[in-house]
This record gives sequence, structure tokens and C-alpha cells, in this order.
Amino acid sequence: MNHYTDRLHAAIADRKTPALVGLDPRLDQLPESVVAAARSRTATETDAAASAFDEFCSRIIDVVAPLVPAVKPQAAFFEQYGPAGCQALQNVIRKARNAGLIVICDAKRGDIGSTAEAYASAYLAGADPDAAIWAADALTVNPYLGKDTLEPFVKVAIERGAGLYVLVRTSNPGAATFQDRETDGQKLYRCVGDVVESFNVESTGACGYGPIGAVVGATYPAELTELRAAMPRTPLLVPGFGSQGAGASEVAGGFDAKGLGALINSSRGINFAWRNARYSEQFAPEEWEQAVEAATKDMIKELADSTPAGVLQS
Amino acid sequence: MNHYTDRLHAAIADRKTPALVGLDPRLDQLPESVVAAARSRTATETDAAASAFDEFCSRIIDVVAPLVPAVKPQAAFFEQYGPAGCQALQNVIRKARNAGLIVICDAKRGDIGSTAEAYASAYLAGADPDAAIWAADALTVNPYLGKDTLEPFVKVAIERGAGLYVLVRTSNPGAATFQDRETDGQKLYRCVGDVVESFNVESTGACGYGPIGAVVGATYPAELTELRAAMPRTPLLVPGFGSQGAGASEVAGGFDAKGLGALINSSRGINFAWRNARYSEQFAPEEWEQAVEAATKDMIKELADSTPAGVLQS
Repeated sequence: MNHYTDRLHAAIADRKTPALVGLDPRLDQLPESVVAAARSRTATETDAAASAFDEFCSRIIDVVAPLVPAVKPQAAFFEQYGPAGCQALQNVIRKARNAGLIVICDAKRGDIGSTAEAYASAYLAGADPDAAIWAADALTVNPYLGKDTLEPFVKVAIERGAGLYVLVRTSNPGAATFQDRETDGQKLYRCVGDVVESFNVESTGACGYGPIGAVVGATYPAELTELRAAMPRTPLLVPGFGSQGAGASEVAGGFDAKGLGALINSSRGINFAWRNARYSEQFAPEEWEQAVEAATKDMIKELADSTPAGVLQS
Repeated sequence: MNHYTDRLHAAIADRKTPALVGLDPRLDQLPESVVAAARSRTATETDAAASAFDEFCSRIIDVVAPLVPAVKPQAAFFEQYGPAGCQALQNVIRKARNAGLIVICDAKRGDIGSTAEAYASAYLAGADPDAAIWAADALTVNPYLGKDTLEPFVKVAIERGAGLYVLVRTSNPGAATFQDRETDGQKLYRCVGDVVESFNVESTGACGYGPIGAVVGATYPAELTELRAAMPRTPLLVPGFGSQGAGASEVAGGFDAKGLGALINSSRGINFAWRNARYSEQFAPEEWEQAVEAATKDMIKELADSTPAGVLQS
């Protein structure tokens, strides 16, 4: 099976959940034991941070791999620690793929012509992890530069069985500044959405979706419902669940009638669950992996109880 | 002097040119001698490519440092070779700063909230190269996610004497897809431009410009002239000169009456000058650095002869 969304939907059906775990390591939030061990085996604080990120994310992957279909490492946090951080990102992507997870590299890349080709070729491994140095199944990309700058990414995605998630309606408070500007009755995000949907018409997989997805924030449930209807062939990546404030009812509009077509992301709420009042009484800091597991299972249950994604479990 | 654009304009005045040399290493275009030497000192093809990029860019820096104020490494080409490529990028940025050049890291980053903070903190060293792990003076960023997502970058830029270049009107053929969409008589790129200009009102340096710049392609000279007038406090980064087809007359509109306010970028036309018919008869492949020097001097002369930037030399 060489189509991204077919592979993704198979993984969703297997785990019976559309929950996506973001990997957002932040040094000041990591378990002290992980940081101390990393410091003891490295010579500089930069190397220690990178090593701690590698260890922390690897252990989260071990916990969540049996539970969820996919993980989404956020490149920015790794890049903070320079080439050593980049090495940790590469290790984490490999580790997640070896654990049977779909990996969406959240790097929000975008550039013109041959530069876009370079990014696409470097990040979009697709079905074969060895096809790209960063080994990701899918990549987030930014559409501002224009449709022609998305095309090199789309080409590589189709060739390699990889996926893209184009930023359409983001989850931040100021998303409307540019994305909601209206021309002839159509907001910019809908115009971007139409371009994304058009890429999927001739690359639809057996599951009925194409490989070119859209990022649509759970913090704007009306727009999520609108875009689900407007982009029937486009898989959605929905950030904003958990620490950004959206709950299961806010993401319900992202799914199709089968409970498919959307991945719901939670990062901090799972990564640092043991720091959350909901879990901190139940789990000691050294039991942080158990807190990660409990938070992941709770997210899966919330999605199952309150959204059409629940049909996956029936 | 701790203000980005004051530092930049001092460098422009010193070199008497607004020419910016992009560093876009491509393995299949590099001098064979550089690639062969890199292969002989490394164990893998990936490490060889990264090492060749490091060597090639370092030698370009040696050639151009006395001639131009700034260089712009393109992150994508380095990221193609994974963590080793990222290490080469870090080395190249350091090398350029040590050579007295302003370094604009062309990575087109952009994300929300604390993720934007992570990118800003990692890339924007500003006046003190040791303030950030990637040590750049300035960074290119993408505005699609909204004004609030630019603010963490603006904050760090002002604090550290660093610069930003926000994508406003890009140089690619399809730039109009989204950037030209018109709302109430105002195109999106003008709306983005207004936001960029607003950031500079309270952070204007002695030179009359703020630290938050705009990317405006030379391939659209009418828009360049329009934006120069609409953004009087905003320094411009103008790609598209040379191999993308724009000449000195197309970039003239980017300058103010003093010949300041814009950097004109050429990448491939300088990096691979010895492969260009204009220089290949004059220089043998092993004289590639002399071709780089000749192409840089020719660009400087063209800008001086045909644009207001010529006042810098008078």
C-alpha cells in the first residue's frame, strides 16, 4: 500500500482512534530524571538538551505506539539545539517509524521552485523510510507563496506515498488576520482549501481521500465543519485539542460519517501530563510515562464518546 | 550599534553596494574538485555533501566578504543532508559572521505562540553571534498564520538587534495565487505590508528604518515600487535578480533616494558563475572562485550604473 491516506486510515482503523500525539519537547518541562541522565552522558548543555529530547520522545513513542496511529514531532523545538537537536529529530522520526507509527513532521516549510523541491525531497520519505533523510510520512507546509510553490511538494508526495498538510485555517487567536480576508464572498482560507482539494482529485486513494491534507484548528469549530464539507477528499490535521482549549465536541465537525478524515492532535496535554493537575495527584514525577499513557487513553476515550470518531470503536 | 538596520546600512555604506549574495549550494552544480576533496575526507555520501557545502560556501565567503555587505544562506539546501547538512549551515553562518558579513538565514519559518518563540530564539542572534545557536543576523519568516505569530519574532528581533524579512510579494510565477487577492480594494500583500510597516513605527533606528523587513520579488517591479512607497520604514530583501530574470532596471524601484532601503539578492548567478556562458570562456572550472568574484563585481557595477543605489558610490 503506497498511498499516504490509505496507510493512515489503515493505522486509524487498527488503533480505532484518530488521536495524534504531538512531540513538543521543552527542556524546562522535561522530567528531571531524563535531563539529569542526559547531562551525565554529554559534555555540553546543548548536547544534553538534544540527548534528553531524544530519550524523552523515544519513551513517549514506546508508550503511545500501541495506542495511536501517528505522532507529530514539532521541528522548532529540536532546531533550538542546533545540529545536535536536528540529529535528535532524525532519531525520533526513525524511532517512531520503526515502532509502526505514521510520522508527520511539523516543520511548516515552504519556498519556491527548486528550493521547494529540496525540502520535499529531504522530508517526504512516504511509504519507504529510506527514501528521505528525515524519513517522515508527511510534512506540514505553508501556502502563502502560491499554488506553484506547493506543486513540487505534491509531486514528491504522490511519487513516494507521502502526505502533506497545508496550513488552511490555523488554531492561533490571530489566525483571522490574513486567513479570513474575503474576496468576492470567499475567505482566503477557503481559497487555499479549494487549491488543496484540487490536488486530491486525481490522486484519491482507495479510502476516498487524496494525500494532500489541510491543517484546520479545533479552536474554530464552525470553520472546521465548513471545511470538512468543502474538502471531501482532503484529510485534516486538527490541532488545538487539550491545552489550546478545544474539547471533543469542538473537533466533531472534522470527521466524516465513518469517523475518518481527520487526525486530532494533542501535544503538551500528553507530553507533560504528569505536570497537569488531572494526573499529578495520581502519578509521581518518576511515573511520567504512566501519566502519558493515562492522558493518551483519556483523549482516545473522549474522542470515542463525543464524536463520530466513536464509530471506529463500534 | 545594536539596531539591525543601522548595522546593515553601515555595512552597505562601507561596501558601497546593496548586493546580497545568496548561498544556495547544490551538489550537482558544485566544482568537481570540491566534491572530490570532500569525498576523500568523509565516509558517507551525505557527509561528503555536507562537507562540500561547508567548503564551497566558506570559499565564496572569502571571495565576497570584502565586496558585499551580506550573505543569505538558503536553509533548504543544507537540510537536504540531514544533521550533517545542518552542521554545515551552522558553520557557514559562523564563518560569514567572522568575516564581517551580515547573515540573513533564509529559512522561511513561521509557527504559533511558543513554537514561534522557539524559532526566533534559535535563529535570531542579532548583534551578538553568541546569542543564538544558528547565529544569524536576520531570518526570513512567513506571515500566513497571522500577525500574532509574527510578534514573538519581532520581540526577539528588537531585543537582540536582529532583523526579520517577512514574505510580502514573492518572486515566483504563481505569487499572485493568494498574495494578489483583493479585499475592499487592497491586495493581500499590501495588507501584510501594512502589518510589517506597523512593527517598525516604534522601532525605527537612526537610519530611518525599523528592523522588520519585507521580501519583495524583483520579478514584479511595479509592486516593488508600490511597496517601497507604502513601507517607508521597512527594509526590503529583493530576490529575483540574475537567474530568475530581473536586471538592474527592475530593482531600481526598491531603493530610497539615498540608494538605501533594499538588498538585492543573487544566488545561482554568483555561486555557479563559472558554469555560465558569460564567464565559462574566461575562467576554467578550477578558477571558479575568480568567476564568483567577477560575477559579484559585475552585479555591483550593474546596480551602480542603473539604479539609485549608484549614489552609494558617488
